[in-house]
Amino acid sequence: MNEMTVAAAQGCIVDAVRQLGSESVALQRALGRVLAEEVQANRDQPPYDVSAMDGFALRSADVANAPAVLEVIEDIKAGEMPRNTLAAGQCARIMTGAPVPAGADAVIRVEDTQALADSRVQIKCSVKPGNDIRVRGESMSDGATVLKCGSEITPGVVGLLAMVKRAAVQVYRQPSVAILSTGDELEGLDEPFDANKIPDANSYALMAQVQALGIEPVLLGIARDQPEALRAALQQGLQHDVLLVSGGTSVGVHDYVRPTLEALGVQMKFWGVAMKPGHPMTFGVAPLTWVFGLPGNPVSSMVCFEQFVLPALRCIMGHRRLYRRTVTARLAHQIKHRPGRSEFIRVTLDRDADGYIAISTGAQGSGMLSSMAQADGLLVVAAGSEGLAANSSVTVQLLEGTAFQAHHGMP
Amino acid sequence: MNEMTVAAAQGCIVDAVRQLGSESVALQRALGRVLAEEVQANRDQPPYDVSAMDGFALRSADVANAPAVLEVIEDIKAGEMPRNTLAAGQCARIMTGAPVPAGADAVIRVEDTQALADSRVQIKCSVKPGNDIRVRGESMSDGATVLKCGSEITPGVVGLLAMVKRAAVQVYRQPSVAILSTGDELEGLDEPFDANKIPDANSYALMAQVQALGIEPVLLGIARDQPEALRAALQQGLQHDVLLVSGGTSVGVHDYVRPTLEALGVQMKFWGVAMKPGHPMTFGVAPLTWVFGLPGNPVSSMVCFEQFVLPALRCIMGHRRLYRRTVTARLAHQIKHRPGRSEFIRVTLDRDADGYIAISTGAQGSGMLSSMAQADGLLVVAAGSEGLAANSSVTVQLLEGTAFQAHHGMP
Repeated sequence: MNEMTVAAAQGCIVDAVRQLGSESVALQRALGRVLAEEVQANRDQPPYDVSAMDGFALRSADVANAPAVLEVIEDIKAGEMPRNTLAAGQCARIMTGAPVPAGADAVIRVEDTQALADSRVQIKCSVKPGNDIRVRGESMSDGATVLKCGSEITPGVVGLLAMVKRAAVQVYRQPSVAILSTGDELEGLDEPFDANKIPDANSYALMAQVQALGIEPVLLGIARDQPEALRAALQQGLQHDVLLVSGGTSVGVHDYVRPTLEALGVQMKFWGVAMKPGHPMTFGVAPLTWVFGLPGNPVSSMVCFEQFVLPALRCIMGHRRLYRRTVTARLAHQIKHRPGRSEFIRVTLDRDADGYIAISTGAQGSGMLSSMAQADGLLVVAAGSEGLAANSSVTVQLLEGTAFQAHHGMP
Repeated sequence: MNEMTVAAAQGCIVDAVRQLGSESVALQRALGRVLAEEVQANRDQPPYDVSAMDGFALRSADVANAPAVLEVIEDIKAGEMPRNTLAAGQCARIMTGAPVPAGADAVIRVEDTQALADSRVQIKCSVKPGNDIRVRGESMSDGATVLKCGSEITPGVVGLLAMVKRAAVQVYRQPSVAILSTGDELEGLDEPFDANKIPDANSYALMAQVQALGIEPVLLGIARDQPEALRAALQQGLQHDVLLVSGGTSVGVHDYVRPTLEALGVQMKFWGVAMKPGHPMTFGVAPLTWVFGLPGNPVSSMVCFEQFVLPALRCIMGHRRLYRRTVTARLAHQIKHRPGRSEFIRVTLDRDADGYIAISTGAQGSGMLSSMAQADGLLVVAAGSEGLAANSSVTVQLLEGTAFQAHHGMP
C-alpha cells in the first residue's frame, strides 16, 4: 500500500469506527458526554404567568395616564400563590419569578415606582399589556422536545436537564482505551535511571491526550522487542475497545508490531500516511478493537493522535464535532516545504488588531517534545505546498489550553 | 454603590483572589493543573548521538561520489550500544533512536539505499556530515530548565514531565467550591413534582460550569427563605474557599442573602453590575472565602459565572489565561440595544470563507435556558452601543464544546 493523505486516512478511520451503545449516568457525571436519547419537557415552564422583575403587578389600563397612584393589596413572593384578584386601582408587590395575580396584565419594575405608604405606590410611567410577564410555557411546554439525541452535554445542557428533572440520562458509552509503548531503549517512569536509555514519554503524553477527551485510559506499560512479550502485551490490549501502540511500526527489520498484530487477527487498513512528522502511522481493525500504531517518537505520536485518534474517540463517544477547531492566522516568518507530505508545525499564537499571528516554536525536530509543550497549535502545511511566505494566511489547529486567553477581550 | 462595568467588576474580583499554596499530584492526575515549581532536565536527551531514521550510519566522505557500495559491519537497534568503530568503506544498519557508532558522521535513510547482500549495501546518494543524526543533548541538556513555574499542564507538558522522569509534580492547590441555591419557589432534583414550583436548575448548571474547569464542587442544596435556615446554609458555605449563592440578591424586600452574608462577616465589594442579563451580581470577601452572589435566573447565573467566577477560579488555580477565548464574527442580523448596560446575547456560530457568522439563538428572555444549551458563544454588546447592524463585526466569547468542529479543516 502507498502512503495515504491525512484526510483519506481520517476518512478511513471515521468510516471504520462506530458508537458502542449507551448507558445511564447520573447528571453529576454527565458533563462532556453525548445524549443517546431525546429529552422532553415534563411540565410547562414557567408553570404559570410569572413576573420577570421585582416590582408591581397591575392593570395596564390603570396607568395609561401615568403617573398614577395605586393601592397595594398584597405581597407575592416566588413560590407563593396570590390570594386576591386585582380590581381597578389596585396592584400587588411582586418578586421576580412570583405568579402574576388574576386581574393583572402587566408588571412594572420597582425602579419605575415610588413608595408612598405601605399600601400606596406611585407608578411613574405607563406600561403595555404583557410588560415584564413571562407567560406560562414560554421557556418550555410540557411534552416538547428540549434536547435531541446526539447533543453534547455542556453546562447549559446540564442546567436544562435539571430543569426537566432528569437525575440520570442515557449517554453513549465511552470506549475503554489501552496504551502500550514498545522498545528496548525505553525506561519506564518507575524504573531506575539508566544513562543509555530514553524515558517512556509516549505512554504519558498519550494518556493525557486521552484524559483531555474525558476518558481514563489503561496504561499497559512497555513491551520489549521480543516476539513473545510483545504478543502477550498486544493480546492484553486487544481486550479493549481501542488500542494505542507507540513505536515499532516503521520499516526497520526489528519491528515486530505489525506482523504480530496481523497474526492476532488485526486487519490492517493502512500503514504509512503522507505527513511529517508521523508517516509510519498505521490503523487496523480487530473483532473487538480499533488499533492505532503510532510512531515511537513522542512529538510524532502526539501529532498523529491529534489527527487520527482524537476524531476516532470523539466519533465513538457520539460527538458530531470530531476535529480540533482550526483558526486562520498570519504567518510571522517564512516556512520552507518540499511538496509531498502534509507537515504539522508547532506554533504559538499571538494576536493583534488583524487577528492571529502564528510563530514557530523553533526547532521542529521530532525529538523536541518541549516544542509540543509550548505550542498553542499545529500549523498545517498542505502536502502540495512549495513553502509559505512570511505574512501568508495559514490554518492552525488549536491544541488543549487555548479555550482561554489572558485578556478579557470585551469590546 | 452604583452598578459597576463588567470590566471593572472583573478587575475587582481578580485583584481580590489569590493562589492557595501548592500540593504534589501524581503525573496521572496532573492534566489541567498549573505547575507551582520550575522543572529541570535530569539528563542529556538524547543521551548520545542517535539516528533520526531507519537506515545506515556511515562516513559521509565514503559516499561523496555516490552511488557507492559499503560493507555492513553491524546492526544497531534502539536501546543497544554499538560494538564496533566504522573504518573507511564500512557502515552499520541502524534503527531510529539507536546510538550512532564511533567513526560514523551521518545517517542515510533506508529509502535511499539498495541492499545487495547481507553485508553489502549500495548507497544511492551523498549526504552531508550530521545528516539525520540527533546530537546528544539536542532536545534537552542535563540541568536546563524545561518548564517554568506557572505553566499549564497540557498533554505536551505531561509528556515532557515523563521525559524528565517526574512521577509527581508540585501544582497550585484547587479551591474547594460550594454551591447554594436559594428560594421557596425551587424544587430540588430529588424532590417530588409540584406543578407550582420551579426545578432548581442553577445548582446543576453551576456544578457543570465548575466541573468544566476541573474542580468537583460541593452542592449544598436549596436554602429556603427563612433567615435561620439561610444563615445556617451560608455558614456551611463559608467553610469553603469559594461560595456561589444563586438567587436572593436582588433588591426585593424578601431577599435576606445580602444582610445575612454581611452579618456573617462577608465584606461586600460590589453589588450590581451594568450588564444584561445578570445585573444583580454581587461579590464579597470573608476571612476564608470568596463569595459570589449570582442571579436566581439560570441563564443570568450562567452568564455571570462565565464573566466573574470563571476568571476567579482560574486565577486561584494559578492560570495566566483567565478568560474565555473571544473570536470576531460577522453578525447575521441586526441587534437592538439601548445604551447603558453591556449585553450578552447567546449565539450559535456558523462559518464561511470570510470567517465566523454569529446568529442569535432566538428569544433572549432570561428564562430561556434552552438558548444557553444551544449556544456556541456569548456575543458581547458594549454598554454604550446604540445597536448593531446586520453584517457588523462583533466579539463572541466561545463557550464549552467549541474546541472542536465538524470538518477537519485541512488546507
